[in-house]
Amino acid sequence: MKTITILGATGSVGRSTLDLVEREPDAFQVLALTAHRDVTKLAEAAIRTKAKRAVVADEACLGALRDALAGTGIAAAGGAQAVHDTAELGADLTMGAIVGCAGLEPVLAAIDQGRTVIIANKEPLVSAGDVVLAAAAKSGATLLPADSEHNAIFQCFDVARPGRVRRIILTASGGPFRDWSLDQMRGVSVEQAVAHPNWSMGAKISVDSATMMNKGLELIEAARLFPVPHDAIEIILHRQSVIHSMVEYVDGSTLAQLGPPDMRVPIASCLAWPDRMATPMAPLDLVKIGRLDFEAPNSVRFPALRLAREALDAGGARPAILNAANEIAVAAFLDRRIGFLEIAAIVEDTLTRYDPPAPGALADVLAVDAEARVIARERVKDCVA
Amino acid sequence: MKTITILGATGSVGRSTLDLVEREPDAFQVLALTAHRDVTKLAEAAIRTKAKRAVVADEACLGALRDALAGTGIAAAGGAQAVHDTAELGADLTMGAIVGCAGLEPVLAAIDQGRTVIIANKEPLVSAGDVVLAAAAKSGATLLPADSEHNAIFQCFDVARPGRVRRIILTASGGPFRDWSLDQMRGVSVEQAVAHPNWSMGAKISVDSATMMNKGLELIEAARLFPVPHDAIEIILHRQSVIHSMVEYVDGSTLAQLGPPDMRVPIASCLAWPDRMATPMAPLDLVKIGRLDFEAPNSVRFPALRLAREALDAGGARPAILNAANEIAVAAFLDRRIGFLEIAAIVEDTLTRYDPPAPGALADVLAVDAEARVIARERVKDCVA
Repeated sequence: MKTITILGATGSVGRSTLDLVEREPDAFQVLALTAHRDVTKLAEAAIRTKAKRAVVADEACLGALRDALAGTGIAAAGGAQAVHDTAELGADLTMGAIVGCAGLEPVLAAIDQGRTVIIANKEPLVSAGDVVLAAAAKSGATLLPADSEHNAIFQCFDVARPGRVRRIILTASGGPFRDWSLDQMRGVSVEQAVAHPNWSMGAKISVDSATMMNKGLELIEAARLFPVPHDAIEIILHRQSVIHSMVEYVDGSTLAQLGPPDMRVPIASCLAWPDRMATPMAPLDLVKIGRLDFEAPNSVRFPALRLAREALDAGGARPAILNAANEIAVAAFLDRRIGFLEIAAIVEDTLTRYDPPAPGALADVLAVDAEARVIARERVKDCVA
Repeated sequence: MKTITILGATGSVGRSTLDLVEREPDAFQVLALTAHRDVTKLAEAAIRTKAKRAVVADEACLGALRDALAGTGIAAAGGAQAVHDTAELGADLTMGAIVGCAGLEPVLAAIDQGRTVIIANKEPLVSAGDVVLAAAAKSGATLLPADSEHNAIFQCFDVARPGRVRRIILTASGGPFRDWSLDQMRGVSVEQAVAHPNWSMGAKISVDSATMMNKGLELIEAARLFPVPHDAIEIILHRQSVIHSMVEYVDGSTLAQLGPPDMRVPIASCLAWPDRMATPMAPLDLVKIGRLDFEAPNSVRFPALRLAREALDAGGARPAILNAANEIAVAAFLDRRIGFLEIAAIVEDTLTRYDPPAPGALADVLAVDAEARVIARERVKDCVA
């Protein structure tokens, strides 16, 4: 029986995690669940899973949470400090599924306990990579990646022998515009950009997939998680998204992980690791799928790939700036304020204008993130003007 | 530094093994090399690798071997008993690459030493599966499969948690006639049958690939090596032979091993296991390969698949009969005495006519093998008449 805390239990990853945990009540004991504001879903999940504690980050919602949990015996708490304290309870497993920079502080608090932390958002490794890795090295925490690509690599990577790995091959669907010309992409609508061909996802990550910034951010995460030279990580277009990534060894063997496009597969892998747990996913039917295609990515049509690799190689604050500027630019695109191709242009422009020293602590990361957003917002205004 | 003995050092697998061993003189010390009759190649390899001993199975060739090794300090020996004694020297690694039933006795002698034995021919697991597995269980020997498909499964299979495996997916190129109708296959020539689309192989195994008996025999081997129910092993057509096989887990994850069509990749995996060793293979270029296709196999056009599964399920002597009858039928086809479709017909007919009790020891296996050949030869005569 493992104890588990889910930071961000009402979002997409949190709900998938709950779905799996609830299927194996003898394997997991829920210590605590946290949510941003969705008190109804949070209380329901806490009651269903017999959680010891439920925490709402927005303190204004604490009264509603107390009401919803009245008589259940489940402790209710609210506010950022309560989320932090919950992360410090030291569950065997902590799922870090809080969206955005708000998740950084509690994930670091969980890492400091030296147990297993599942990383399900990109900020800990992209924006705060150095800080997070240093904290994990200090506490001895195990980091498990829940993202499908990194989880695939993790399943194929011989952690005991990283020197035997020749290449990591990160697969990319290429998004809905993989076959479009730059000229065609200029006129892309919000509706076209959010329609991902393989995965059902939120608007922000769908746009990141369409610009391939998503793959750029994943490149940076892969380089943080797996000790190989940066240029040993390659991106390959694989439109069916069936192979989630691959690891090639010095002997010529390549190991790949394949699976259905359902986040519960990599999440289940993290929850049960090093064992496996059953999930309700239908077996992969390769005969029905018929074929898997592979192409080289195009960093002229998808400049986000180039920007991400440059940020990775330069290190320091660059990945945090890349991520923050991209969030602002994507939000502006979703608001129909800028065009699709301007997303990458704004990111590049922000990187050109802002070059602070490498962040040494979480506070530095948050300051870089905030300043990069200010600069990117100005660039959005310039575009609109 | 591991000591290694190569049983069958001058055949295709033996030479690939030598190529790898000679690339890492600090990792391997060659204890002994054996060959059937090719004294020249055997002596050359023994001298190059500074082997302690060279053994020729055909005692008539011992004089020539002694001459070739005069003054080198390498011990020369000849005859079946000498091969047996060599297998008993207890090298850390024994490569069992003797073709046919002649390899059974020395491979069993090596297994009895309780070290690591690399299985590179099908007889130990197909014809003598029960005997070989019982011997390995008794001595504690580790069996590593050098065949590309089984090595792929081995690389993906969590040996510590076989209960977490849902399916083994054995990939098959389908051979040169995968798209042919039964009518077209009726007129297949020897030249057409030995032209394998992906691998460069000997005539016998090329014909086995064309009839898909090769995949049927591999199905039996997979069932011996990996503790899963027979019906959890599926065969899937994959014409490019890039994915060498896959293992699907209960969580929906499928692990696959991919590689170039070069036997040195799986052999290197066995030699270095659980570590990896460098090989001179060019990295797999999936962009250049472009696509991987998957189809369901057809057991009407390829009855060998059905025959092998029936033999596996029935167990006992059936797999040994299948293998022996197939060898006779393929030899008759290569001699242009029977047609292509008659290969499977002769195998089925032999299985129908001969149903001895399960072999309990190696001598029983050899007797079943010999009798099945007699019966199959009679069937060939009937076909020709």
